[in-house]
Amino acid sequence: MSAILIKNVEVISEENNEIFNIGIKNQVFSYIGKETPTGFDNAYVIDGKNFIAVPGMVNTHTHAAMTLLRSYADDMILMDWLQNKIWPAEANLTGDDVYWGTKLAIIEMIKSGTTTFADMYFFMDRVAEAVQETGIRASLSRGMIGLVPDANEKITESIELYNNWHGQADGRIKVMFGPHAPYTCPVNYLKRIIDEAGKLGSEIHMHLSETAYEVSECEREHGMTPIALMNSIGLFDLGTLAAHCVHVTPADIEIMSSKNVRVAHNPQSNLKLASGIAPVPEMLAAGIIVGLGTDGTSSNNNLDMLEEARLTAMLHKNNKSDPLVIPAKQALNLATKQGALALGFSDVGEIKVGQKADLVLYDTRKPYWYPRHDRTSLFVYAANSSDADTVIVDGKILMENGNLLTIDEEKVYAEANKCGLRLTK
Amino acid sequence: MSAILIKNVEVISEENNEIFNIGIKNQVFSYIGKETPTGFDNAYVIDGKNFIAVPGMVNTHTHAAMTLLRSYADDMILMDWLQNKIWPAEANLTGDDVYWGTKLAIIEMIKSGTTTFADMYFFMDRVAEAVQETGIRASLSRGMIGLVPDANEKITESIELYNNWHGQADGRIKVMFGPHAPYTCPVNYLKRIIDEAGKLGSEIHMHLSETAYEVSECEREHGMTPIALMNSIGLFDLGTLAAHCVHVTPADIEIMSSKNVRVAHNPQSNLKLASGIAPVPEMLAAGIIVGLGTDGTSSNNNLDMLEEARLTAMLHKNNKSDPLVIPAKQALNLATKQGALALGFSDVGEIKVGQKADLVLYDTRKPYWYPRHDRTSLFVYAANSSDADTVIVDGKILMENGNLLTIDEEKVYAEANKCGLRLTK
Repeated sequence: MSAILIKNVEVISEENNEIFNIGIKNQVFSYIGKETPTGFDNAYVIDGKNFIAVPGMVNTHTHAAMTLLRSYADDMILMDWLQNKIWPAEANLTGDDVYWGTKLAIIEMIKSGTTTFADMYFFMDRVAEAVQETGIRASLSRGMIGLVPDANEKITESIELYNNWHGQADGRIKVMFGPHAPYTCPVNYLKRIIDEAGKLGSEIHMHLSETAYEVSECEREHGMTPIALMNSIGLFDLGTLAAHCVHVTPADIEIMSSKNVRVAHNPQSNLKLASGIAPVPEMLAAGIIVGLGTDGTSSNNNLDMLEEARLTAMLHKNNKSDPLVIPAKQALNLATKQGALALGFSDVGEIKVGQKADLVLYDTRKPYWYPRHDRTSLFVYAANSSDADTVIVDGKILMENGNLLTIDEEKVYAEANKCGLRLTK
Repeated sequence: MSAILIKNVEVISEENNEIFNIGIKNQVFSYIGKETPTGFDNAYVIDGKNFIAVPGMVNTHTHAAMTLLRSYADDMILMDWLQNKIWPAEANLTGDDVYWGTKLAIIEMIKSGTTTFADMYFFMDRVAEAVQETGIRASLSRGMIGLVPDANEKITESIELYNNWHGQADGRIKVMFGPHAPYTCPVNYLKRIIDEAGKLGSEIHMHLSETAYEVSECEREHGMTPIALMNSIGLFDLGTLAAHCVHVTPADIEIMSSKNVRVAHNPQSNLKLASGIAPVPEMLAAGIIVGLGTDGTSSNNNLDMLEEARLTAMLHKNNKSDPLVIPAKQALNLATKQGALALGFSDVGEIKVGQKADLVLYDTRKPYWYPRHDRTSLFVYAANSSDADTVIVDGKILMENGNLLTIDEEKVYAEANKCGLRLTK
């Protein structure tokens, strides 16, 4: 990809009413300023007038191909939902289903301004394929459950996934090991995962302390919270992305802080499944890196990260009875830079020289962008993810003026629709 | 306006995968079915292919012209916000400001699928003018505060507003009396309002029990909750739309139920201001009519009713620790039919023969509309308000294919921007 020059654009992190030029070369931001940078004579030029540049959002926890099951089973009790709807449908999943379901998810993510996601699911080589083809950035984990006959094969698949895909696609793909949760992975199974992941240098992506029931069962069985149990077996020493962490104690938070556990906070999924509200302000106060996630679209039901950023800001103000909690700027930071750090992408998440060029231009010719008192407030509290107009990942344009350049949208809709209806009939 | 025939469209309340024709004549739905209706030979035809018809949303509580102050003052403590930001800015408001701010709000509402709103603010004759010109439907209230020198004039203005505008614009405008709240309206002032409203047959739109502080202060001063106090002075006998009702007791709910008090639930505003979560499931169980509202855009910060419907469904599931609470269909009903009833529009809010033709066509060629397992779930839990493509109110097209037909969008943006910046400089 040749160089890109975005002219006359507002940048969310800069002062109001100031206009910038952004130069992108060799996958990174190489110029942000008011001059016309040198060395961009042959660059592809994007007119940034009426647009605002925002770092691409990072979805730190999802199960992308569950788009196929979106709206199939809502407003149900968890076990009824899993046993009678989701698991039977998932039992029929093929690699092709996952490929098309993931592509459907990637379309939705790009169109709503998400440029990176962390995925935990099955047939992850097909997910990697979809990521490579579409140009998005991702951290991929093969979900592993220990209580099934093919528990060992799942570890083997994880090793293969790591060897085949970690660092691939110009570094856009990372692989983590994905033990599903303490209640689906016995300690001995986890120890083998830790051993294999440790040999490869892989980090861990895992559901932890999502429900009160999970925590009380763990305490009954092990005399420890899930966080304390994982710490006791050395899981956190590998580097861990912990999804949910709704029911964590002050002692858990101390462990998480000291072990640099990074958290994927999924506020909407937690509300929809009535799981509770994670103590995010407390985790942030303890210096823990917290990113935001949508979770799968069966429990959300979309992949709209601006919705999650807004809900995070709103929900915790009320939950702490303090309207100063998680102001707009911090919510945006969680959805972008903190999310990237949670996934281990240290050079992603800011519009800053030297960072990987993952950027979204939002159209501001919308009623809720007037008057322009405070741009970050407008974006986080009022704007709409559908205003994402142009999306760049790793210095490559994936969407321009609403048109996807790396995906045949109509074909994906048709194929994903077919897969979804077959799975559930 | 001549007759309108919408062909080959899905209707959200009907069976999946069935296609209908909708005939609109004399402001109402006159045909909904699978045939081509007679009497529509000269009708204006809209191709409904790829669209889904949903009743227009009803925003039961806002302060529309506060769009001018959107993003001016966020993430602040309530009294700091009011005393140092909002009140000084509002002191400079002119009738023209309110006119342009309201038009800006109406653009946002139409574009996001809202066809009716309940407004409480100042210069309400200018709001009525904006409603009349743009073709939207509204219930208007002059906000009245008793603790100011011109308290009496506000009652006079309310009487004039009622006489001049109630039932006007082909019945699209209703007027209610708008005493602001128990803590800003002493009992003697309220009694005069009740007296004047009673003579005219006007209903009441009032903030009630929004914060815990309001309730405890009322109990300290009057020995009663705000709900009990309003009941004791006969306010509810007029018919009341009560905004917020966050801190209501079981005894309050009994009063509200027996007096047919209708509630405007504003979940996002209540979260942002850290006011609490209203006991909506309990109010619904008591048979109370509950509609949804955004509140003003200084405490939200947009007018997106689909966001409120979604948040209502999500928030109360978690708050009651029960994922079955407020399923998608009920959330949609609150945002449409129940909202219309809350405002006293008995023939609005459903796509049904004989009802007023207030309808929105949403574009379903979007990633989150595939696969199509359950349409209502997709709409409430996954879709985006920006997909509103064509909007009809009272049988008249206000927006077609995203183009506003009754408003000069660019002019409103320019004028509202000017007003907003002048007010806050």
